[in-house]
Amino acid sequence: MRSPQFTAESSSHGMVERDFTVGGVPGVLWSPASGVDRAPLVLMGHGGGGHKRHPSMAGRARLLVTGCGFHVAVVDAPGHGDRPRSAHDEQDIAELRRAQAAGEPEGSIVVRHNARLAELAVPEWRSVLDALQELPEIGADGPVGYVGVGLGTAIGVPLVAIEPRITAAVYVATWPDVLMDAAQQITVPIEFALQWDDERVPREAGLALFDAFASTEKTLHANAGQHMELPRFEADSAARFLARHLGRTHTPAA
Amino acid sequence: MRSPQFTAESSSHGMVERDFTVGGVPGVLWSPASGVDRAPLVLMGHGGGGHKRHPSMAGRARLLVTGCGFHVAVVDAPGHGDRPRSAHDEQDIAELRRAQAAGEPEGSIVVRHNARLAELAVPEWRSVLDALQELPEIGADGPVGYVGVGLGTAIGVPLVAIEPRITAAVYVATWPDVLMDAAQQITVPIEFALQWDDERVPREAGLALFDAFASTEKTLHANAGQHMELPRFEADSAARFLARHLGRTHTPAA
Repeated sequence: MRSPQFTAESSSHGMVERDFTVGGVPGVLWSPASGVDRAPLVLMGHGGGGHKRHPSMAGRARLLVTGCGFHVAVVDAPGHGDRPRSAHDEQDIAELRRAQAAGEPEGSIVVRHNARLAELAVPEWRSVLDALQELPEIGADGPVGYVGVGLGTAIGVPLVAIEPRITAAVYVATWPDVLMDAAQQITVPIEFALQWDDERVPREAGLALFDAFASTEKTLHANAGQHMELPRFEADSAARFLARHLGRTHTPAA
Repeated sequence: MRSPQFTAESSSHGMVERDFTVGGVPGVLWSPASGVDRAPLVLMGHGGGGHKRHPSMAGRARLLVTGCGFHVAVVDAPGHGDRPRSAHDEQDIAELRRAQAAGEPEGSIVVRHNARLAELAVPEWRSVLDALQELPEIGADGPVGYVGVGLGTAIGVPLVAIEPRITAAVYVATWPDVLMDAAQQITVPIEFALQWDDERVPREAGLALFDAFASTEKTLHANAGQHMELPRFEADSAARFLARHLGRTHTPAA
């Protein structure tokens, strides 16, 4: 096992933020500034077109680190953030932009693109987890959770299906097409959010993915609103869910 | 307007509990023992076969009173608790027991029975609300919420549809059949819980009722499990939802 290579460190808002790489994959690890002995680790997967420091990641990290005392790691997905796009990536994205501009269905393009990235990203995440667990403040036997948004769900469903170290997961809905088999292999507690008036992912598709999880403990949160209108209180809910399942107390921000 | 007639008072667990009647309808009012100047009021409707002090009501009341500083009022629905059953009630209940014993569908019997009780209960609730708002610790212009379970939802949907003083509501799913029109008139924020594996109320029926609310802010919480297996954390969630919408801070129990 190799430890992560740390390349930068800073502190703000009660968090220590460390940039790292594992096998060439760049990531960021946010940790409590108070310096706890050992704490659970939450892995987070950003959405398509996003990156490891996207506000939806940094904002959730702050809730999880300062509210629950967790470590939170996010890596750039293949072709995202500090990672170069392949010719295949460029081709997919051009096709997606063309379909969106023409008002044509984008689902099948996103599904295929995300599935290809997930195939690369799942083994990367497992190596990153190996490396992070080498750190004394995380350790090899502590609880691990996962939070995924969009592409982060497309990666996180197959990841959690084969990664027994992850014992609780929060997903924001995405197209379920290629995820159904993996979802049916997942038995850990799940909190799953979808937008009731999602203009991109059809409601029935989101409900079908929630239905597919084999978990005896799973909760669907469906909120009125469109694809990009997930209410902020769902990030608080995710923190409470992970605190409950990873064995921490959640203290809401003042 | 007549004030409620108080018939008994006791204190425990940080709450003052007062029995009252309004126009012959018996109820219980739980209030913070600390004695606050004015506080929001939450009306709660118990399930079929239950009563004003059913554990599902007393337990939620404690979270709302001690966690949020609310007043909480529950009344016995017609034919429930301290109220006599009519011949019509007895007939409905006998028919329901027969259907349940025979393993026959109960939905249409419950829907009809609950609709009849709701017709009686809605004007009763409005008189109770008039009376409670005469109390100086509640007042006529403070925020009012509603929480309903089963029969309490069947009463609470038509109540909230016509009662502008109620500005936020939490419902646990019931058969939507006669409630759809009223739900379409509701525009206040809604939190709506259903059981994903409900063996009594069909999943599609619960989803249809949630879909019917005209509220721009509404949240569905669907949990794995059968009809009677609503997780306890949903009561905490309801307290947070009401605290957010009625203007209080929610402090989780230690």
